[in-house]
Amino acid sequence: MEAHAKPDPPAAQLERRLYAEIPLTRHIGVRVGAYDRATLTLKAPLAANSNHKGTAFGGSLFSLAVLAGWGLLVLKLAARGLEAEIVIQDSEVDYVAPVHGDFSARATLPDGDEFDRFVRTLERRGRARVQVSVVVSHDGREAVRFKGNFAAVRPQEPSRVAIG
Amino acid sequence: MEAHAKPDPPAAQLERRLYAEIPLTRHIGVRVGAYDRATLTLKAPLAANSNHKGTAFGGSLFSLAVLAGWGLLVLKLAARGLEAEIVIQDSEVDYVAPVHGDFSARATLPDGDEFDRFVRTLERRGRARVQVSVVVSHDGREAVRFKGNFAAVRPQEPSRVAIG
Repeated sequence: MEAHAKPDPPAAQLERRLYAEIPLTRHIGVRVGAYDRATLTLKAPLAANSNHKGTAFGGSLFSLAVLAGWGLLVLKLAARGLEAEIVIQDSEVDYVAPVHGDFSARATLPDGDEFDRFVRTLERRGRARVQVSVVVSHDGREAVRFKGNFAAVRPQEPSRVAIG
Repeated sequence: MEAHAKPDPPAAQLERRLYAEIPLTRHIGVRVGAYDRATLTLKAPLAANSNHKGTAFGGSLFSLAVLAGWGLLVLKLAARGLEAEIVIQDSEVDYVAPVHGDFSARATLPDGDEFDRFVRTLERRGRARVQVSVVVSHDGREAVRFKGNFAAVRPQEPSRVAIG
């Protein structure tokens, strides 16, 4: 209870938003980690996400990946002062190694030109689509590769596309 | 507390196994529904799985789909007296419509010949791979299409393949 607490950084705001708006994220134990110009890292503990083999459940690994991609877009659009609903449209995921401990998902924006095109399209047409890559790792080793296409729709736009 | 209760059917056993071995399934609220010769249906409530838009979270939809595919293979192999570890290797998922209520995931085996080949390979080589399709629906309408490749490895086999 600090009387003069600094405003929360965007990553802390994202964590609170996840817990408030997507209750399952509390049970997965999602924590927001590093956020920089082009990447966002989320973390989760193995204990809450273990499966029949004592490794991380594939649904939890996917969930952390899709949240990392979604969260990165939320933060990047907010940083440009753009409000938009962001939803996953489709994705491909490869489980390249089992995960024997706590894990993290690092989402990376597409290269600068592609992300700028996405933002310009969103500004001009009120909706746009972009691909985000996410790598889930455990102990520094790559375990899951995720690619997701996300759609962004500005709130004032009539929803002419079925999102999905 | 019936003194002469009938043995649990395989679907009820699967539900208990999910809760015991994959704790997140309790928070998703997974229920095992219909199981027949070639399909398995799992169900989940919207309330536990809602997102920032009040629709079902993409990670929950994926989780129910992968559990339906996995569970169907577990039940079908058990019915043939085959013990094997089954894990997801890769998948593609399309979110074709938002989910505004409770939802179900119906996994379907590949056609008879392909499934028989998978079983024969598993018996002969101790490991095999098979694709399972899952459709997630809400209120009778298709919302998510999932295809997953699963690997099965018999326990006596040395794990010569990195699963994933």
